Amino acid sequence: MTGPASGAATDEVLMRSDMERLSAADVRAHIRAGRWPHTTKRLALGREQANLVILEERYAFDFMRFCLRNPKPLPLIEVTDPGDPEPKQVAPGADLRTDVPAYCLYRDGRLAEEVRDIRELWRPDHVAFLTGCNLSVDQVMLDAEIPLPHLVDEGAKASQYISNIPCEPAGIFSGPVVVSMRPIPKNLVVKVIEITSRYPQCHGAPIHVGDPAAIGIDDIGRVDWGTANPVGPDQVPVFWACGVTAQAVAQASKIPEMITHASGHLFVTDRAVLDPVK
Amino acid sequence: MTGPASGAATDEVLMRSDMERLSAADVRAHIRAGRWPHTTKRLALGREQANLVILEERYAFDFMRFCLRNPKPLPLIEVTDPGDPEPKQVAPGADLRTDVPAYCLYRDGRLAEEVRDIRELWRPDHVAFLTGCNLSVDQVMLDAEIPLPHLVDEGAKASQYISNIPCEPAGIFSGPVVVSMRPIPKNLVVKVIEITSRYPQCHGAPIHVGDPAAIGIDDIGRVDWGTANPVGPDQVPVFWACGVTAQAVAQASKIPEMITHASGHLFVTDRAVLDPVK
Repeated sequence: MTGPASGAATDEVLMRSDMERLSAADVRAHIRAGRWPHTTKRLALGREQANLVILEERYAFDFMRFCLRNPKPLPLIEVTDPGDPEPKQVAPGADLRTDVPAYCLYRDGRLAEEVRDIRELWRPDHVAFLTGCNLSVDQVMLDAEIPLPHLVDEGAKASQYISNIPCEPAGIFSGPVVVSMRPIPKNLVVKVIEITSRYPQCHGAPIHVGDPAAIGIDDIGRVDWGTANPVGPDQVPVFWACGVTAQAVAQASKIPEMITHASGHLFVTDRAVLDPVK
Repeated sequence: MTGPASGAATDEVLMRSDMERLSAADVRAHIRAGRWPHTTKRLALGREQANLVILEERYAFDFMRFCLRNPKPLPLIEVTDPGDPEPKQVAPGADLRTDVPAYCLYRDGRLAEEVRDIRELWRPDHVAFLTGCNLSVDQVMLDAEIPLPHLVDEGAKASQYISNIPCEPAGIFSGPVVVSMRPIPKNLVVKVIEITSRYPQCHGAPIHVGDPAAIGIDDIGRVDWGTANPVGPDQVPVFWACGVTAQAVAQASKIPEMITHASGHLFVTDRAVLDPVK
């Protein structure tokens, strides 16, 4: 089911099927050493993966309130002290400057650069936010036998759209909720709602099921991020709040600088999915 | 079971049994008008009640990280914008300067004054934090027939102790976890753990059951806040993380100014217990 990682060009060929069974710390070590420049889907299965947003301290309190007010797209996992790249609670010993396979640098709300590490970019006034991600529930979806394209197809990407649902604003941050769409077989829609509602820290239950136009998506074939995944005749488009909301809001508010993970290339934490925080 | 509120001295005698059935907005209106200077236990049953902490904006980001890192004592419900006394998400139209029955003003970590409203104290650089409270689960405890002194005895107070469990520090904030103890009949200990673990936003499951010395409490008869509730021969002392942790930490860090609710006099939100946030 899982072939060699596409684009792997090191002396050691790592397989995604091997990475699935590694500890989160071992996964991060491979990423830090440059041996895994690929997406993190299914890596260290059963561990929470997190979206990364890095901001200047002067915007950090605004953004933290923004996350708290918009827990469906941006469920807060951990926020570092200014200048500290180690998320001490969910991954002690990790380094957020090197342990993500790919990063995006936004300047004035526009994507300026995609880089492999951010040691040169990191400053003492940087604050890192980790927020929940649906990749965390890959193991749950596999156990429940929910067929999702990205779980079986190495090249597949999610379909993401800007909805017409507004976020609750906070300080300089405001904008629309970005949603990710997964085509779900009609007979599994209730099941997938039941399952995902148990994981609020991974976006929880869908925010919409069915008609895309009802949430401002006129053309399901035209994505804002990712790739369009076709919805078959026996399937229903199901929409979850998505962490890409942070990037959409950065663009809307033209924030001078924001560093994020690159789409699909998340930070793998030590925390087991559904573990209590402490 | 509930007599007239002690100390009621207005033209209208409000009974706690009436206040139990009012909406949260009506409860707040009575409090705002000065007609309910008493504790909020059992008011607007089934609605989340919240601890209140007001700080200067310069400490707000530190304190918000402190809450996120210590979700058992300080589960975040809402944080207002600087200068805005309205908690727009959980109680639109409310005013945090008037809608709490009694407030405490701490200066340099010491209790300076207890007041009925804070209109004169409120400033544009103030930020208000609402965090979860065990009074929110009073209805749940009643439904489950868990006998708790404060639910049946008008004058009863919880027993609160400074434990030897350290909080995760953030910025200038550090200190011990404060715990509240309830004596629970031996045959109901598992039941009360099962029930409270379902309400993480109200401190969740206990953090300790049994021997007080194991968490640094040498004398169960000597409380740090509240009153000592005796533990009978068929009872076990059960300890939950407590929102008073905020005051203990204010004292430990000698913060220049902190305004809080007075013990037992909480802010009643519109949010139904266990309602999803949005």
